[in-house]
Amino acid sequence: MSSRTNLTREDWIDAAQSVLVKSGVDAVRVDTLAKELNITRGSFYYHFKSRGELLEGILGSWRARATEDVIQHLRNAKTSPHHQLQRLLELPFHGQTAREAAAIELGIRAWARRDTKARQAIDEVDRHRLSYIESLLMHGINDEGEARDRAYLIYAYQISLSLLHSDDTPQERLERNARMSRILIPEQDLLLV
Amino acid sequence: MSSRTNLTREDWIDAAQSVLVKSGVDAVRVDTLAKELNITRGSFYYHFKSRGELLEGILGSWRARATEDVIQHLRNAKTSPHHQLQRLLELPFHGQTAREAAAIELGIRAWARRDTKARQAIDEVDRHRLSYIESLLMHGINDEGEARDRAYLIYAYQISLSLLHSDDTPQERLERNARMSRILIPEQDLLLV
Repeated sequence: MSSRTNLTREDWIDAAQSVLVKSGVDAVRVDTLAKELNITRGSFYYHFKSRGELLEGILGSWRARATEDVIQHLRNAKTSPHHQLQRLLELPFHGQTAREAAAIELGIRAWARRDTKARQAIDEVDRHRLSYIESLLMHGINDEGEARDRAYLIYAYQISLSLLHSDDTPQERLERNARMSRILIPEQDLLLV
Repeated sequence: MSSRTNLTREDWIDAAQSVLVKSGVDAVRVDTLAKELNITRGSFYYHFKSRGELLEGILGSWRARATEDVIQHLRNAKTSPHHQLQRLLELPFHGQTAREAAAIELGIRAWARRDTKARQAIDEVDRHRLSYIESLLMHGINDEGEARDRAYLIYAYQISLSLLHSDDTPQERLERNARMSRILIPEQDLLLV
């Protein structure tokens, strides 16, 4: 059962992310993880050179997944910018997956307060998402500064959705997103095509 | 040195908040704290009946401080709603204090994902802040639903300021806050008096 081939690199990273969410980065330690996974530390060193490499693995995996959604939207470019924005605002509500993603992101943001590499990963993802939203807005807003400011506000709203509690029904949520969009993007009609 | 009178209830709560920020709520344990503070567990039970009471103490203390700023604004009601909103958007930048407050709040939000009492404390503070912002906006916006939506967006923006990284200089920050305010509150002139 403790064969080194049983666990993949991703299994270790998943387990490490769970510990990060629950107990913070200091608790992400090889011995603790090995115990939890009921496996020898040797199996760890088959996949990683060091704890540092595992921590980089956490960030790499998160960065890939956290931007995946955005990339999927970019690939779906057949839909209007308006429709893409609506879907973006729905992302925080995609059930268990969204809740887990939000929990990991929160854990990494807490970690980033004291660690340069985590900070860089977060900054990169924030920039990536912001520039995607900005590119959508540029379909309807000519002024680049204006598009950047509004993209920031939309992103802030999206983050708050994953952070703040809400008792809204799905229908109320849709209506609310629509109202918020009207405030944040008065030129919405321009984004419909 | 281990006299029970040396440490106050607040000292224990401060130490517990630090551990919460660094390692999550599961790491907030009486034995660990006693060790860290170099004091006997007996001293703990002089101030608290149980670990549960300490956890409630963390929430109570945070709730008081997190709404203190808001209350101070309410007391300063001699200034215009517009000025109060500007100061509110400056709060996330009040140096070390703001950074620590943001770290504690992040820790409590992470905790609130799995705990009802933490969830209630967060919800209460969010509601308190939102209704304060809403009350300011009602000076210039007649429609209550509209004021509520815009208050939410302003709050989301404020939260993002404490969460997202920025290299802005204080001057750039002020200009940015002003631009964001113009987007979020087109009726700003009405809030000047």
